[in-house]
Amino acid sequence: MFEGAVQDLIDELGRLPGIGPKGAQRIAFHLLQADEGEVQRLVDALQEVKLRVQFCVTCGNVAQAEQCRICADPRRDTSTICVVEEPKDVVAIERTREFRGRYHVLGGAISPMEGVGPDDLSIAALFARLADQAVTEVIIATDPNLEGEATATYLVRALSTLGVRISRLASGLPVGSDLEYADEITLGRAFEGRRLLNA
Amino acid sequence: MFEGAVQDLIDELGRLPGIGPKGAQRIAFHLLQADEGEVQRLVDALQEVKLRVQFCVTCGNVAQAEQCRICADPRRDTSTICVVEEPKDVVAIERTREFRGRYHVLGGAISPMEGVGPDDLSIAALFARLADQAVTEVIIATDPNLEGEATATYLVRALSTLGVRISRLASGLPVGSDLEYADEITLGRAFEGRRLLNA
Repeated sequence: MFEGAVQDLIDELGRLPGIGPKGAQRIAFHLLQADEGEVQRLVDALQEVKLRVQFCVTCGNVAQAEQCRICADPRRDTSTICVVEEPKDVVAIERTREFRGRYHVLGGAISPMEGVGPDDLSIAALFARLADQAVTEVIIATDPNLEGEATATYLVRALSTLGVRISRLASGLPVGSDLEYADEITLGRAFEGRRLLNA
Repeated sequence: MFEGAVQDLIDELGRLPGIGPKGAQRIAFHLLQADEGEVQRLVDALQEVKLRVQFCVTCGNVAQAEQCRICADPRRDTSTICVVEEPKDVVAIERTREFRGRYHVLGGAISPMEGVGPDDLSIAALFARLADQAVTEVIIATDPNLEGEATATYLVRALSTLGVRISRLASGLPVGSDLEYADEITLGRAFEGRRLLNA
C-alpha cells in the first residue's frame, strides 16, 4: 500500500472501466510526476463535463444545452430519425456524412442477460416524437450483435402499427475485408442482402 | 467529434498512459452517466495528490511529509539501503516483510535508448547518504532486465571505492514455475546462483 493520497487516487482510477490495478498505479505515478498544468486540465475537464453536459431533451444525445447540436440545427431533415444505442454511435454516423436527418439515442440495447428491458430504454420518448412530428422513416442503427438485433426486432414490432417506413442498416462484408476470413454469419448476411447489378 | 466538454474530457483522458482513444471515450461516458459523487471523489483524489504528495528528501520515495513513512520510522535499520528504480518497487518489497532497512529510489534506470543516463537518476543523493550515514550494505534491487542490469553494473563500479558491502537480488526460477518453460537466460542465472545444500 502507498501512503494515503497516492493510494486513494489509485483506488479511484481503478474504479473506471477498463483500468486495472496496474494501470491505475501507472496513471497515478504519471500524474504525480506530471506538471501541475496537466493535472489541472484533467480536473477542469472532469468538472466541466459534470457542470455543462446534459442529455438532449429531444433525442437523448449528449448536449451542452437543452437540445443537442443536431436537434437544434434547422437544416437537419426532420422526416427521418436514425435510432442508435449510444451517443458514440451518433458520432460514428456523423463521421460518414451520409445522413442528414435526426437521431434518437436509446441509451443501450435490450439485454435479458444484463437485465435491460424495453422499459429501460428511451422508447416511449421515440413514440412521442413519432406522434408529434411528421416522420416518414425510422432507420434502426442498433449494433449488429445479439442485443442490437433483439432491440431492432422489438422496435420493428412496436412501430409496425404507426404506418412509418422502418429500415435497418445493411449487414455484410466490411469494405476492404477478405471474404475468406469473414465469419459465416456475416457471409450469410452478405448473401441475403445481395444487390442486383443488372436490374 | 463530440460536443466541446465531452471531447475535451476524452482528449485529456487519452493523454494518460495506457489509455487509447476508445478507452478514453468509454471512461468519459461512464463518468457522464456516473453520479456526481463518483466524479467528485476522482477530482478530489487528483487534487489531493498534487497538494499533499511530495518526494522524500532523503530517499526519493513518495511521501506526505518532508520524509516518507519509512525514512521517518526510527525502528527501521539505518545500516542497510535497498536501491530501487521506482516508488512502486518499494511497495512490492515492503509486501514481502523481508526487509527492515531503508530505501533509495533512483527514479528510473539507465537507458541509452531512452536517453536516460546516470545523471538523470538520484545517484548523487545516494552517495551523499553513504557519506553521511553508517551504512554497511547496499542492496541493489533494480529490475532484472537490460536497463536494470546496466544500472546495477554502473552502481557496483561507482560504489566500489566506498568500502561498503554491495549485493544484488538473486535471479533464478520463479517459485511455483515450471523449469521446462523457463527462458534460457533465467535458467542460466539459476545455475550460476545455485546454492550448496550439503555445505
